[in-house]
Amino acid sequence: MIYITRRERFCAAHRMFREEWSDEENMKVFGKCSNSNWHGHNYVLYVTVKGEPSEKLGFFININTLKRIIREKIVEKVDHKNLNIEVGFMKGKIATTENLAIAIWNELKPEIEKEGAILHCIKICETENNSIEYYGE
Amino acid sequence: MIYITRRERFCAAHRMFREEWSDEENMKVFGKCSNSNWHGHNYVLYVTVKGEPSEKLGFFININTLKRIIREKIVEKVDHKNLNIEVGFMKGKIATTENLAIAIWNELKPEIEKEGAILHCIKICETENNSIEYYGE
Amino acid sequence: MIYITRRERFCAAHRMFREEWSDEENMKVFGKCSNSNWHGHNYVLYVTVKGEPSEKLGFFININTLKRIIREKIVEKVDHKNLNIEVGFMKGKIATTENLAIAIWNELKPEIEKEGAILHCIKICETENNSIEYYGE
Amino acid sequence: MIYITRRERFCAAHRMFREEWSDEENMKVFGKCSNSNWHGHNYVLYVTVKGEPSEKLGFFININTLKRIIREKIVEKVDHKNLNIEVGFMKGKIATTENLAIAIWNELKPEIEKEGAILHCIKICETENNSIEYYGE
Amino acid sequence: MIYITRRERFCAAHRMFREEWSDEENMKVFGKCSNSNWHGHNYVLYVTVKGEPSEKLGFFININTLKRIIREKIVEKVDHKNLNIEVGFMKGKIATTENLAIAIWNELKPEIEKEGAILHCIKICETENNSIEYYGE
Amino acid sequence: MIYITRRERFCAAHRMFREEWSDEENMKVFGKCSNSNWHGHNYVLYVTVKGEPSEKLGFFININTLKRIIREKIVEKVDHKNLNIEVGFMKGKIATTENLAIAIWNELKPEIEKEGAILHCIKICETENNSIEYYGE
Repeated sequence: MIYITRRERFCAAHRMFREEWSDEENMKVFGKCSNSNWHGHNYVLYVTVKGEPSEKLGFFININTLKRIIREKIVEKVDHKNLNIEVGFMKGKIATTENLAIAIWNELKPEIEKEGAILHCIKICETENNSIEYYGE
Repeated sequence: MIYITRRERFCAAHRMFREEWSDEENMKVFGKCSNSNWHGHNYVLYVTVKGEPSEKLGFFININTLKRIIREKIVEKVDHKNLNIEVGFMKGKIATTENLAIAIWNELKPEIEKEGAILHCIKICETENNSIEYYGE
Repeated sequence: MIYITRRERFCAAHRMFREEWSDEENMKVFGKCSNSNWHGHNYVLYVTVKGEPSEKLGFFININTLKRIIREKIVEKVDHKNLNIEVGFMKGKIATTENLAIAIWNELKPEIEKEGAILHCIKICETENNSIEYYGE
Repeated sequence: MIYITRRERFCAAHRMFREEWSDEENMKVFGKCSNSNWHGHNYVLYVTVKGEPSEKLGFFININTLKRIIREKIVEKVDHKNLNIEVGFMKGKIATTENLAIAIWNELKPEIEKEGAILHCIKICETENNSIEYYGE
Repeated sequence: MIYITRRERFCAAHRMFREEWSDEENMKVFGKCSNSNWHGHNYVLYVTVKGEPSEKLGFFININTLKRIIREKIVEKVDHKNLNIEVGFMKGKIATTENLAIAIWNELKPEIEKEGAILHCIKICETENNSIEYYGE
Repeated sequence: MIYITRRERFCAAHRMFREEWSDEENMKVFGKCSNSNWHGHNYVLYVTVKGEPSEKLGFFININTLKRIIREKIVEKVDHKNLNIEVGFMKGKIATTENLAIAIWNELKPEIEKEGAILHCIKICETENNSIEYYGE
């Protein structure tokens, strides 16, 4: 079993807040991340998939296929976008990196499986100090 | 003459656009960076100042003084903020990294000079691929 | 189950040696790392904790809580310190990064659990080429 | 159980292709990576081994031993070499990073075990965006 | 005057040698870099151009224009190529990074000037330890 | 004129203090950097030299010559050492990175000139946030 990881990047705006809470309540729980005028990040996304390389090709998924899937299904939908407002798969969810990782997992899983590979991990770095990993369970 | 550089980071939302233009016109000039729902970045700021180290101390400005100035005068005003809306020194300017570098230069120059040092360069990395430098002339 | 990782940094002096050995014996086993006048590193610490994000908040531990715990319990005690002499939780241990990772695990585990999260991994990079991971077992 | 990771680097040329295929067929499957005039990479290799630190030494394998093994058994054989033509342990294999990771695992496993440690993972970054991991199963 | 830097990357094979010298002579001067079976690198290219931002746009060259020029004129010609054999603007030159930087300067200068900007610096990192800068004089 | 930069690294202990001052006075000026039990860093050193590449060789100094000089004259003397106590060229100086950069400049200048090249810049990164440059004037 080989694990292959593709790194992609996107820049997006977001804020963390609950609509039914006042700005003060949101500030108390989410701090400056709830700023009502938004802030943003250079998100770094790592998608890891696993499988057994064929003897014929020396791989189990072409890295360009993996790259194309991530760009079509994720990057084009989040890059230079507002995660709270403009991203279908984040609708109704608090725009934490935790929820983003789970949502990206759900978007990518069927696409990866169509290619005969297994999705293993979604990792997102929000800043150089903070990152999230999700393994689907 | 010694050059000392302090790196600081901030996360902010912005968009590039001219108010008097339609969304289509803005999109044609600024592309996805003009998205009306904002996007954002992990900006990395490098402030370089120069001076002659004293024999007594082995430096000409304490790095903690430099750090404090940058945090008080810049980072606290832009971190987790919307550069177009919430940042006094960017009011009335297109929120490009170019204009941001010039504005930060103007904010920091007098503060650095109060400490007896000379501001040499403001460098801002907007992404790992794009960066701006300004030397005050 | 989501994994969240916080990166923190500290600068410290240390040496690797056994008191009952001569300098020559120490040099033979630990090499230049046993230099009796000390050397030091910019240590990079990654603390990974896991848990299930609540629907209400979109996370299971606030990253600022995690950051505060690591700074109070670890960084303040090791940053700009001598790991052999000044750090209570390293007393009586050889100051290898291996022992440091285990000691940090033991310091952080109860604090993380108080917050309802599970400590998953302590990773320490001593240099860009050498790193240690400990998973508590 | 402690995991220790050593990073080493090497620069090599390679191409991905099957001899029995025409250039067109190779191009269709492997794209520009099959260029018959070769291309190359700065490969970054991470070797992770695991074991239980002795109380006496505070480690289970000296990082210098690990470094020496990787350099002697791998780096000296691949650095500034052509992976397709000049590397014994890649003979008869398609020069994908997947196959390279498996081959390096096989070369290092007995050497690591001679030192009383357990080989845990071979990770290779081919570019900053693409990486491979192999855990021996 | 603002300086804007665009980073691009390419992977290529090369060797350093003089045709009229024997392999032994080449090895003596260029070392393992003259290996007759080639080796390769992940080259990182930084192109810095300068100009005065217009008040209307907040920049003097659109970063996407700069990116397009570098990709069309340079990256497409060197990526996944053999620098000695396949790159027109390196013909007849020893494939050192020094010569590559000068050749890229000459290729880009007229293209940058067509956009009303001034080419300031070509920087190429061959490895994380070795880099070259050229300022056109 | 081509600029070539070699990166080297070393790990060392140091403290910033004036002997004739009390610990309290030192703490007031130098803060935690004056800790009497030392601390340390992974210093990253960039040495930039300039010259005109010969047509015959495509360079003006062999990068291996530059590397050998830096290792012999600097790295071997500071790596895994105490900068205050064990480094000849730092004797009698406060062990700031500013003074270290100037001292390294003075050590390397004659050696670089012997090779027919010109020393251009010494840059030292003490941490990822703090760096010093010295251009010899």
